[in-house]
Amino acid sequence: MNVLIEQVRQGQIRAIARLITQVENSSTAAEQAIEALYPYTGKAHVVGLTGSPGAGKSTVVNALVKTLRQQNVRVGIIAVDPTSPFTGGALLGDRVRMRDLSGDPGVYIRSMASRGSLGGLAKATASVIKVLDAAGFDYVLVETVGAGQAEVDIANAAHTTVVIEAPGMGDEIQSIKAGILEIADILVVNKADRPGADRTVRSLKMMLHLGPVGGTRQSGRISSPSTASQNGAAWNIPVLETVATEEKGMAELAEMLGKHMAHLRQSGEWLKREKERSWREVEMLLQERFMAQFQASVAPEVRDGLLTAVAERKVDPFTAVRQLLEKTESKRKG
Amino acid sequence: MNVLIEQVRQGQIRAIARLITQVENSSTAAEQAIEALYPYTGKAHVVGLTGSPGAGKSTVVNALVKTLRQQNVRVGIIAVDPTSPFTGGALLGDRVRMRDLSGDPGVYIRSMASRGSLGGLAKATASVIKVLDAAGFDYVLVETVGAGQAEVDIANAAHTTVVIEAPGMGDEIQSIKAGILEIADILVVNKADRPGADRTVRSLKMMLHLGPVGGTRQSGRISSPSTASQNGAAWNIPVLETVATEEKGMAELAEMLGKHMAHLRQSGEWLKREKERSWREVEMLLQERFMAQFQASVAPEVRDGLLTAVAERKVDPFTAVRQLLEKTESKRKG
Repeated sequence: MNVLIEQVRQGQIRAIARLITQVENSSTAAEQAIEALYPYTGKAHVVGLTGSPGAGKSTVVNALVKTLRQQNVRVGIIAVDPTSPFTGGALLGDRVRMRDLSGDPGVYIRSMASRGSLGGLAKATASVIKVLDAAGFDYVLVETVGAGQAEVDIANAAHTTVVIEAPGMGDEIQSIKAGILEIADILVVNKADRPGADRTVRSLKMMLHLGPVGGTRQSGRISSPSTASQNGAAWNIPVLETVATEEKGMAELAEMLGKHMAHLRQSGEWLKREKERSWREVEMLLQERFMAQFQASVAPEVRDGLLTAVAERKVDPFTAVRQLLEKTESKRKG
Repeated sequence: MNVLIEQVRQGQIRAIARLITQVENSSTAAEQAIEALYPYTGKAHVVGLTGSPGAGKSTVVNALVKTLRQQNVRVGIIAVDPTSPFTGGALLGDRVRMRDLSGDPGVYIRSMASRGSLGGLAKATASVIKVLDAAGFDYVLVETVGAGQAEVDIANAAHTTVVIEAPGMGDEIQSIKAGILEIADILVVNKADRPGADRTVRSLKMMLHLGPVGGTRQSGRISSPSTASQNGAAWNIPVLETVATEEKGMAELAEMLGKHMAHLRQSGEWLKREKERSWREVEMLLQERFMAQFQASVAPEVRDGLLTAVAERKVDPFTAVRQLLEKTESKRKG
């Protein structure tokens, strides 16, 4: 195992891939490896990229990576697809990207699909970020599909969250957008050469201005403009226009990532976000340990009998929980 | 409190609304009320309705309710909008619906928006379902926006999950669809008078046929066609066509809901799903109780110091969890 850890730290692609596979299978060995690698993490700039389906996220990520590579930085990409049991996470975008970026030793791409729970996916993604961070990648880009809890989880894991939209979305999408705006540090209107792009940019700026967001984001949650400056300069969420297929606007996006990183460092937000991330991680592990303890202390047939009683409305869930906790407690004392 | 519970059981709308507000504010009183109401639940047919943005979910729900009302059954509707902090859950569709259905004493509509975590929303939705169930509504329709964890949570809470699509979605949406298919008991292609509807129906049928789903769903998870018949008749996921704006296809959808319910009862799936739902609920409560216990036993400054150390990479998360668990443990023994 020590050899594997050393190889990962040296950035050896095969070792990285092997460890990530172990992480996906949630092996104990993987957990120990992450523990050993942890002191070497905290250097990468973790960027989450998300947005509505059809906004061209994969193309933006692809073009952004090319631009970042011109600055001679190493880029790791995690493509998270929590909704695709059929494709196993291999989306069209990935295939295009693979063809485009493969052969560049400064780029590592990994697709991850949900196998079990979405919570499991969030945990695995957090671990893979650490592996790539410890392996010396300067940027770790995490791309997700769709809108929902996955996005929030990724915003939680990232230092900078980029939300990508495209012109001409309907009314219902606007409302989803509103939710997604809450997690955005940078907004991108891709396909900006299409008709209606100006209107989309304007409407996004208006939502930023009018909404509770007030165009600023701090500490993983929205703060009103009046409180936003308590840490010095507030971050004004920029709305950038790109045409990713022609690599237009990518230099500006790369520059904005740097600016946001500088902002996080100067305002003290970096440590604040890292602490929040740490808490979520510790909380997740605590719950996991507790449930394992619980499973070990309550016999399956007792549990099953109680659940049948709950399902048949003979016992309510609150009473069931009280009974189960008493059993766990007495087992612990016994 | 006893008066409120009695009034809810009698189906008094004001009492229902008041209790749901208490549930949303997660008060202890609300928890006790749910506990008291629990024996009177288990009668309603809980139907989850979800699908891609723009598929016309609200219109389908609206038209379906009118059809169900002709059968003289009472219908409760929960419109869940986890992604709209801006609108507070009041979508355009809700407003249209309110206008259309208001004044009908056999219909109760409640919008719910995420205030805290999505987990909190799932818990609140589960409680509101119980309130409406105990209040004697024959159907409880739960409608969600978007694609993601919210859908899975709702599929978990529902007896029947209806996934609504519309013709002419792109490649990326197809992949999301694949994820959503996993939770579907009934598929609806709405806007079936639009060009391309036939192709959408065909492609959905093909995905059902080709995918791991095999067109059958049992016990909250996909089973292959070969194992599907272990409980007697398997459920073949139907693909229905509707034009909700003209109320076309609604009688068929209402009929299919009844057929699915009959299937669940006859195959023993009903109890199986209720047991799974009970377990998720009990698990959620257990974790909640445990975290409360933990919060009470570890001093905030100890916790904060440890999290800072994790954020600064001086302590890894796994070691932090071990230290915290030791503190909780020794506190409990002391």
